[in-house]
Amino acid sequence: MKVLLHVDESTKWKLALGNAKNLLKYGEEYGKEYIVEILANSEAVRELEMAKAKEKGLFGDMEDLAIQAVKFVACRNALKANSILESSLIPFVEIAEAGIAEIVDKQEDGYSYVKP
Amino acid sequence: MKVLLHVDESTKWKLALGNAKNLLKYGEEYGKEYIVEILANSEAVRELEMAKAKEKGLFGDMEDLAIQAVKFVACRNALKANSILESSLIPFVEIAEAGIAEIVDKQEDGYSYVKP
Amino acid sequence: MKVLLHVDESTKWKLALGNAKNLLKYGEEYGKEYIVEILANSEAVRELEMAKAKEKGLFGDMEDLAIQAVKFVACRNALKANSILESSLIPFVEIAEAGIAEIVDKQEDGYSYVKP
Repeated sequence: MKVLLHVDESTKWKLALGNAKNLLKYGEEYGKEYIVEILANSEAVRELEMAKAKEKGLFGDMEDLAIQAVKFVACRNALKANSILESSLIPFVEIAEAGIAEIVDKQEDGYSYVKP
Repeated sequence: MKVLLHVDESTKWKLALGNAKNLLKYGEEYGKEYIVEILANSEAVRELEMAKAKEKGLFGDMEDLAIQAVKFVACRNALKANSILESSLIPFVEIAEAGIAEIVDKQEDGYSYVKP
Repeated sequence: MKVLLHVDESTKWKLALGNAKNLLKYGEEYGKEYIVEILANSEAVRELEMAKAKEKGLFGDMEDLAIQAVKFVACRNALKANSILESSLIPFVEIAEAGIAEIVDKQEDGYSYVKP
């Protein structure tokens, strides 16, 4: 099963990461496999900067999830709007040209959509 | 038609219950049948405690909806995180091992997803 | 591809309009066609009044999007609850009997759902 978690508010990162963690734990316990992508746009791309992720205490959970194959994707429009350089992002973060288009593409591809 | 309403903020309960009520009313007027589930995780499980639901004036609407076959489901992870005992929940509330997994399962099963 | 953007908080209008704009721009650049509907219910119907849309500086973007065939739809229940007359709405706004039913119908019809 495939899931896209959509984060566009900085205050929702903790909840979204917890959701992803719970989903993977559930999958392990019940023998279900989940492909998980966390798509950030709007102000929520800020927490994908390495410095900010560490400052807010989010980096550890992000790294744990990335190791378990969770994809982190940032919207390029939002990066520009927030003056964030690609070079300052966490290395495992990928970039989508338009976050909103990525959300639609993924749903077209059979992903469930969850907005924490 | 099947619908899952996702509530993870305490302040959104009133809106979510109103949405469910409007949907069932619309279905009655236009001869459409809706199967509705309200899935609560994160802090929003608190309002599924009988005492809290009554205190906040939500219980009446919840009961009306439950009588019309709306399912109320609480995430077990969130219950634990909020130190809520199963015995303090409204009797018609069911429990899902992981709210996020329930959301995905339901979408896989053809439910539309709505986040009030 | 078809997309429904759901807006039920007044503060989210700017973000939702930006999302729609980015999606259409992306579609133009990458040769993809998107059919976009913005469905407003709850307090978010207020910004679909002509006077309020202009006051908040949202009208220009709404009009640009409407010209590009984006549909704006207001929930009749929410209009009533907010004492908004149809005659005060922006002329290109359409009305759905129940916003929540419209959201479900559109997902049944293959629309992706996005909640900015």
